[in-house]
Amino acid sequence: MITDRLIEGIIDMQNPTCVGLDTLFDYLPDDMKSGVNTFEGVAERVFEFNKKIIDNIYDIVPSVKVQIAYYEMYGVAGMKAYEETLKYAAEKGLVVIADAKRNDIGSTAACYAKTFLGETAVNDKTLRAFPADYVTINGYLGTDGVAPFVEECEKHDKGVFVLVKTSNPSGAEIQNMVLENGVPMYEYMGGLVEKWGESTVGKYGYSAVGAVVGATHPTEAARLRQVLPHTFFLIPGYGAQGGNAEMLKSCFGANGLGGVVNNSRGILCAYKKNGGTYYEAARTASVAMQKDLSSVIGVMRR
Amino acid sequence: MITDRLIEGIIDMQNPTCVGLDTLFDYLPDDMKSGVNTFEGVAERVFEFNKKIIDNIYDIVPSVKVQIAYYEMYGVAGMKAYEETLKYAAEKGLVVIADAKRNDIGSTAACYAKTFLGETAVNDKTLRAFPADYVTINGYLGTDGVAPFVEECEKHDKGVFVLVKTSNPSGAEIQNMVLENGVPMYEYMGGLVEKWGESTVGKYGYSAVGAVVGATHPTEAARLRQVLPHTFFLIPGYGAQGGNAEMLKSCFGANGLGGVVNNSRGILCAYKKNGGTYYEAARTASVAMQKDLSSVIGVMRR
Repeated sequence: MITDRLIEGIIDMQNPTCVGLDTLFDYLPDDMKSGVNTFEGVAERVFEFNKKIIDNIYDIVPSVKVQIAYYEMYGVAGMKAYEETLKYAAEKGLVVIADAKRNDIGSTAACYAKTFLGETAVNDKTLRAFPADYVTINGYLGTDGVAPFVEECEKHDKGVFVLVKTSNPSGAEIQNMVLENGVPMYEYMGGLVEKWGESTVGKYGYSAVGAVVGATHPTEAARLRQVLPHTFFLIPGYGAQGGNAEMLKSCFGANGLGGVVNNSRGILCAYKKNGGTYYEAARTASVAMQKDLSSVIGVMRR
Repeated sequence: MITDRLIEGIIDMQNPTCVGLDTLFDYLPDDMKSGVNTFEGVAERVFEFNKKIIDNIYDIVPSVKVQIAYYEMYGVAGMKAYEETLKYAAEKGLVVIADAKRNDIGSTAACYAKTFLGETAVNDKTLRAFPADYVTINGYLGTDGVAPFVEECEKHDKGVFVLVKTSNPSGAEIQNMVLENGVPMYEYMGGLVEKWGESTVGKYGYSAVGAVVGATHPTEAARLRQVLPHTFFLIPGYGAQGGNAEMLKSCFGANGLGGVVNNSRGILCAYKKNGGTYYEAARTASVAMQKDLSSVIGVMRR
């Protein structure tokens, strides 16, 4: 079961983190960028960069989150680099999260679910488009926009993370609006997520339907941890966005489980701040992040 | 100004509609599907199908909406067909809506905005990834997730449609939840959309920041039309989803302006019901839809 597998990676590495491969071309060292002036050129270099990052973290970090926006902006060639990155990370044994925040009505959501979690039928063949272990989704369309994803999760042992309380400042404009029954929208959305996950709870007590809960909102996170006992959190906002270990502690239960913390720029661009090669700096930054989180979160042992 | 251009197309053709190129491979006639067993094969046939549809409707329909999920599910090759379809439709003078429902925090939303509405920088060059006139977006992340799109709209004369009241049955689970001030979420979201569009109102009184309002919810649509005077509506749900002309009338103002009604399966799959070639059937169905809407909506003349 996918969330069990993610949790066991976290336990074995004592590291509840995820490296965000939000690889903007500008993040690459100058010598890798030099002379490139086509999307094909960008795609080739970005994949080369990602491979080196993955090679240097896969034994100490259990998962990667690959933000599709940073590939789609380089057109069809960028999407090829996206596909290659997902596949390479999976080959290295990482749990792969496609960060795509997909959402639509049922019939269209079914296509997205097949794209990232399932298979696409072409006459009598089935093929995989952009294969991942999890995909992030937006729940604004309610149950019938989410159900096709849950179906693919059940069928192919995959998972989703639904946006609940996002890390950005103005998420509160919608998510913290209080409903007439006194419950804020993020908590109401969280309740739906807990329900959507009911059929897929694994042996550690967490389901395949997780929630995105920003590291930047400790009060909301504490409340969500309390009311969503079976929901695993994907926690963005650590580092560049201002979240720190102390702030996100409330996302975790007493056994140190309950979430995985993403860091993108802090890993990919560590070399710009600390020097050295980008991949050695990424590994050093990953080790430092593990230590930082360990100082406040005691992940259980098997 | 993009919404003026869309409105003038609607006026000139007396036709407030949009053909949805949600081209599932299964929608193609058997002889076009025969022998295909790769994503590359699908992509080639889907683009061929789209071209013929466009060739047969571009003089009577002002816009197309191209649903990205139906391309992404065919992998990198599918994304190539998506790009080609957007470009071909633009060449034929159609207003092109990329239906992608993108959403993320500001820095990532900026990438999506460049992908569909603006340009991507590669060293000293700028290139376009998936060029469209409008892109659909989801507002769950609030203003800082929308602002980068509005910026590209201002810079490149483009537009967005933000999900407000979607056509699917369970959208109500979130969108009809009533806030403590008595306002339902869809109306509150609509209010944000009206505000986000303030800087881009064109000569017909509508801004570049539109709203998605389903044809299947006449009561909510009437309320939104009343409280969002400068917001143009993209109206899905006509036909296969159960919406009809009478139900969506309330989306339009007294001058017959205010929205564009999408029809996907009812056009693309018309040949399955009515016989003939798929492209002739698509044209016949487009003419019938225009007549059906004209019976209740009187679009103003120049």
